[in-house]
Amino acid sequence: MMNDHDDPNLPVVPPPSPEEAARLERLYARFSDNHMIPLWTEIGDLMPEVPKPQAIPYTWRWKDLLPLAEEAGELVPVGRGGERRAISLANPGLDGRPYISPTLWCAIQYLGPHEVAPEHRHSQNAFRFVVEGEGVWTVVNGDPVRMSRGDFLLTPGWNFHGHHNETDQPMAWIDGLDIPFVHYSDTSFFEFGIDRVTDESTPDISRSERLWCNPGLRPLSGLGTTVNSPIGAYRWEHTDRALTEQLRLEDEGFPATVEQGHAAIRYMNPTDGGDVMPTIRAEFHRLREGTATATTRQVGSDVYQVFEGCGRFVIDDTVHEVEKGDVVVAPSWSAVRIEAETSLDLFAFSDRPIVEKLNFARTHIEGVNP
Amino acid sequence: MMNDHDDPNLPVVPPPSPEEAARLERLYARFSDNHMIPLWTEIGDLMPEVPKPQAIPYTWRWKDLLPLAEEAGELVPVGRGGERRAISLANPGLDGRPYISPTLWCAIQYLGPHEVAPEHRHSQNAFRFVVEGEGVWTVVNGDPVRMSRGDFLLTPGWNFHGHHNETDQPMAWIDGLDIPFVHYSDTSFFEFGIDRVTDESTPDISRSERLWCNPGLRPLSGLGTTVNSPIGAYRWEHTDRALTEQLRLEDEGFPATVEQGHAAIRYMNPTDGGDVMPTIRAEFHRLREGTATATTRQVGSDVYQVFEGCGRFVIDDTVHEVEKGDVVVAPSWSAVRIEAETSLDLFAFSDRPIVEKLNFARTHIEGVNP
Amino acid sequence: MMNDHDDPNLPVVPPPSPEEAARLERLYARFSDNHMIPLWTEIGDLMPEVPKPQAIPYTWRWKDLLPLAEEAGELVPVGRGGERRAISLANPGLDGRPYISPTLWCAIQYLGPHEVAPEHRHSQNAFRFVVEGEGVWTVVNGDPVRMSRGDFLLTPGWNFHGHHNETDQPMAWIDGLDIPFVHYSDTSFFEFGIDRVTDESTPDISRSERLWCNPGLRPLSGLGTTVNSPIGAYRWEHTDRALTEQLRLEDEGFPATVEQGHAAIRYMNPTDGGDVMPTIRAEFHRLREGTATATTRQVGSDVYQVFEGCGRFVIDDTVHEVEKGDVVVAPSWSAVRIEAETSLDLFAFSDRPIVEKLNFARTHIEGVNP
Amino acid sequence: MMNDHDDPNLPVVPPPSPEEAARLERLYARFSDNHMIPLWTEIGDLMPEVPKPQAIPYTWRWKDLLPLAEEAGELVPVGRGGERRAISLANPGLDGRPYISPTLWCAIQYLGPHEVAPEHRHSQNAFRFVVEGEGVWTVVNGDPVRMSRGDFLLTPGWNFHGHHNETDQPMAWIDGLDIPFVHYSDTSFFEFGIDRVTDESTPDISRSERLWCNPGLRPLSGLGTTVNSPIGAYRWEHTDRALTEQLRLEDEGFPATVEQGHAAIRYMNPTDGGDVMPTIRAEFHRLREGTATATTRQVGSDVYQVFEGCGRFVIDDTVHEVEKGDVVVAPSWSAVRIEAETSLDLFAFSDRPIVEKLNFARTHIEGVNP
Repeated sequence: MMNDHDDPNLPVVPPPSPEEAARLERLYARFSDNHMIPLWTEIGDLMPEVPKPQAIPYTWRWKDLLPLAEEAGELVPVGRGGERRAISLANPGLDGRPYISPTLWCAIQYLGPHEVAPEHRHSQNAFRFVVEGEGVWTVVNGDPVRMSRGDFLLTPGWNFHGHHNETDQPMAWIDGLDIPFVHYSDTSFFEFGIDRVTDESTPDISRSERLWCNPGLRPLSGLGTTVNSPIGAYRWEHTDRALTEQLRLEDEGFPATVEQGHAAIRYMNPTDGGDVMPTIRAEFHRLREGTATATTRQVGSDVYQVFEGCGRFVIDDTVHEVEKGDVVVAPSWSAVRIEAETSLDLFAFSDRPIVEKLNFARTHIEGVNP
Repeated sequence: MMNDHDDPNLPVVPPPSPEEAARLERLYARFSDNHMIPLWTEIGDLMPEVPKPQAIPYTWRWKDLLPLAEEAGELVPVGRGGERRAISLANPGLDGRPYISPTLWCAIQYLGPHEVAPEHRHSQNAFRFVVEGEGVWTVVNGDPVRMSRGDFLLTPGWNFHGHHNETDQPMAWIDGLDIPFVHYSDTSFFEFGIDRVTDESTPDISRSERLWCNPGLRPLSGLGTTVNSPIGAYRWEHTDRALTEQLRLEDEGFPATVEQGHAAIRYMNPTDGGDVMPTIRAEFHRLREGTATATTRQVGSDVYQVFEGCGRFVIDDTVHEVEKGDVVVAPSWSAVRIEAETSLDLFAFSDRPIVEKLNFARTHIEGVNP
Repeated sequence: MMNDHDDPNLPVVPPPSPEEAARLERLYARFSDNHMIPLWTEIGDLMPEVPKPQAIPYTWRWKDLLPLAEEAGELVPVGRGGERRAISLANPGLDGRPYISPTLWCAIQYLGPHEVAPEHRHSQNAFRFVVEGEGVWTVVNGDPVRMSRGDFLLTPGWNFHGHHNETDQPMAWIDGLDIPFVHYSDTSFFEFGIDRVTDESTPDISRSERLWCNPGLRPLSGLGTTVNSPIGAYRWEHTDRALTEQLRLEDEGFPATVEQGHAAIRYMNPTDGGDVMPTIRAEFHRLREGTATATTRQVGSDVYQVFEGCGRFVIDDTVHEVEKGDVVVAPSWSAVRIEAETSLDLFAFSDRPIVEKLNFARTHIEGVNP
Repeated sequence: MMNDHDDPNLPVVPPPSPEEAARLERLYARFSDNHMIPLWTEIGDLMPEVPKPQAIPYTWRWKDLLPLAEEAGELVPVGRGGERRAISLANPGLDGRPYISPTLWCAIQYLGPHEVAPEHRHSQNAFRFVVEGEGVWTVVNGDPVRMSRGDFLLTPGWNFHGHHNETDQPMAWIDGLDIPFVHYSDTSFFEFGIDRVTDESTPDISRSERLWCNPGLRPLSGLGTTVNSPIGAYRWEHTDRALTEQLRLEDEGFPATVEQGHAAIRYMNPTDGGDVMPTIRAEFHRLREGTATATTRQVGSDVYQVFEGCGRFVIDDTVHEVEKGDVVVAPSWSAVRIEAETSLDLFAFSDRPIVEKLNFARTHIEGVNP
């Protein structure tokens, strides 16, 4: 079907005669006039034998990202006209579009002392992950949610949300959204809210957590399955404890980790045990010092941010040394191996819910699958 | 179809002639010989217009239950030949069978100092709820689970389990199982295990909790949906906090409770948000002092144990004054109203998963449904 | 836990002293006064190692059933006061209750020329299967459904239904319901309808079939999943063709049958591919002349009616020679082998949806499972 | 957040000073060096208030498509190097890519007398719809499936398939695939098969139909839910009958159609009642002469082919007169009204399973929703 599918055993088709070539040229012109495109001339890479992403493996350095965000904080106002002071990480393979992968958006967002990012809502699903800092509350459908180091925070599609910084210090964090997918699939809806936030209080724990973060318990007032997780913030204290316990259980000889020395949790929707939002999966991984993951290919795009520690990503034939705050993207079906120099803590997100729900999931683990 | 379906507007069927009566008698005898039973003579109560349970509303007093269990502790050995020192609560309507309702078993179990209830497994689903005491560990598939006041503990179908008392004090608790349903439906399988327990250690927290009781997080080593909750113990500390927060949220003006003054949680399977076991639902309710629930009828059997406080159950035309430890059963479709004299904490379990999965669920709330 | 769990390796518990025996007796009396029953004295057969049904394997002969139904037709009026002229098949093991198994009801129903069985509805799920005859229409929620030989017809829970015979000939058929389960679980609701049927027309094909019996197609006006199949009648013509094609495919060397020489279909709900009703599974099996099924144990009760041909059921240690119209019941976990003397057509129904949804399903196939 | 979100009530941000402008320019250059893109300069149309597709409403004429396909048949060989003689319909809004919508591919495929399109398989899901002609068999995983007028045929992802023309006449049909989505999401896998087809027999009915096209019945050998429908061909005879019956039922006064005069079916997967493939929905609609649909907006792309009759599509502010064979595309959220001049039969497919599974579905019906 395509040029890269050449097979030496096939009968050679003789080249067209001059007359045939002329007829072909006229035919192709008529195709063009009629908005038709022949499969056989066009699609060398349309249906490859394995995924051939345009996106490339790439790493952004926190030591570059943060100063640039800080300078934007000085020069660019937040609020209406800009809505958010967010600077996206643009995959170099994606032709200058502000996408970290074909489906995913990742940006550093920066909010100066006492600034407010006004409320709005959109069909795009969003989360925040905080690699350092504190002092900002994000208000989701009127529920103020404290943002602190290590926290993973949700603003699922069509929930009003705004942010406000209650301190004299700026704060930066990572935003993840499905903006590219929504743009691609023509599914964007957007609505403005108020210019500030609807609740400026600064509780330590959001109402969503008070209702939903009691392990194994659900409120009788919330028995229905919801499309998105009702939890506003997944706190670092819980994530850290979960990973610590997995490694302790491994030390005690019990099954708990995904691989030797590799603890990991998936953030979940407590109403059904599934992913936190319909398009985005989020996880946290901890590798013991000196360990490495198996080299693995998966369909779908993966993004990682180093939360603590240092090590390297080997993605296809590229090596990415990483340290705290660095952001790494691994395109679909790239071979990924993660090596921990020190104990390595990684926040991770991906578009795998899209891939899985539409039945395109495949995994290849080196040395396991043939 | 039945005697209680009499309708005065119907044409009167004339009584049979003597000859017809004789023929009928012969016919009925032939039915009997052929193991056939006519619908029209037999089934006055087979298909009632609303459920007419044989089981009756009833209350057992903790001040009766506990001394009797203690005396059994002196006279009856635990272990092989008896397997468990459990005394069931037998609904007075159920003809002397050891069932609290047609589907459910509820017993007080008693384990003396340093006694061991040996391991076994069975298709019946079981839980424990601890209204007072501590010092026993239940070992579920090799995972030792501490039992303490307010804890709800699972031993789902076909999991090996045994109990051992590590103290010089006896301990008693409530067992709930689906023994009657399993007996009725001919689905019982049973297998003996070792005579003691497979792990005599006494950790504060079970391995299942270390893996699964981190709110909103699931281990990557446990991504599949499981029929039963993987959590061995639901701790009182979490239940109490969840209820406390619901009432605080209500005070703050936010939706959180099921009715005014009525906080409640359902114990859930974190892998899918559903009930903890396929046949048994378990919940915990807290009523503020002086409040009462709406009078409600539901299809299915409900059992309550008072955990703290006092009040009364009004079930159909019976009134049940209750205090700590008392066990109350409300049969299917009985009208139940709970009144809290003091703040009232109630553990509750039911067979509603059976009713719901088989599409027999109905609810009538006085003043809400017509 | 029970008497039948004796284990010779266990330490012998010495018999109680006279004094202890006296105390025990007093204790048991106090248990009784308090509606408590000790587990250890009572429950020899409460939790057996494998299911030990009270129900027994049994066969009713069509040549007995039909004449008795005919005689009832002469002596017993149909209609109000009796609602239906149905005579149930009472399992000899079930203490004179009109149940073919603990969960299932099976009856022969008989409607004389031009008689009407008036409309009613109930929470019980019902079906009809027609082993011979024609001329009756069952009207389900106002939709008249012709009943003919080989047809399988549904009246799921809470659908109004009545029957009327439009001919000068009587007609008899088999009813299957979950009456025992509904009675046991206290989930019965019943409501009278009109004294005749709401639509006395006699179309060849019901409206439900016109909407829903187009293979692989669903009406856009019916996109929701429904608890019960929306199909009123599964016609013999389709069942026969499906079985014929499976055997032809087997002859052609393709996978299609469940075992060599054994074709089978399950009646399904087209909205989700599941069972036709929440509590009852229905299937049709065809065995080639001279073949036999593997000896199989399954949890749950199975009922068969021979539609055509002859052969035998070997159930545990009983042999049941069968011919057209005979009804056979196999209790839970009995070992069943079916042998076809001629080509053997069997209608079958069971309570397996109950068993499966509540996670009690197990199967043992001789020579396959250990 | 974007230029098209201007709000006159907002405070005017003063333009930057020359110095600020210079600093901004330097900042933007550094962004660019670091593969970062600011949200506030870039994304005027990235998150629109409602979907703003690049794809436009467009119609291709069968009287243009077919002659061009015929000429390609003379000039371009089928088979290896080209795999398929398919010419795609390229939406004029999509920059020359061979996509009818961002997610969907639609092509006319042409197979000359006795030609063979060799076997291959790919992760892309495919179907064929036959607006006229006959004589080709498509062989799907070894099962030969006849292609005739009005038939809808499946070759779901990763099923080997090839086509062969058994006649002296050419044949053309429409292919629908998710090629654009798979390309976009980097989920393509492709594998060559044999150069001809694995089974050159020409049965009237495929094995898949013999097993699965018996209404309401499923083979006991096929009880599992499958991701794709197991049915190879949905025959015109059944589709036509389903639509005819819906209109008759409407005439008789019963609910059956989606709107007055508008009958419609959805092709479904019989194992679960869902869509035939994970990414593509397919339906067939029939409008009575002189009727029209409500004007409706839906998220997702819709493609229609006129099977019989004539009428017009009003899509946003464009009018498309259509007749037999014409292909129309309606982009996401466009307002679509279909008017039937004669009785109008329409085959339709869309990417709505993608939209629904990822929770982006919305519908607006003029005069119904506000």
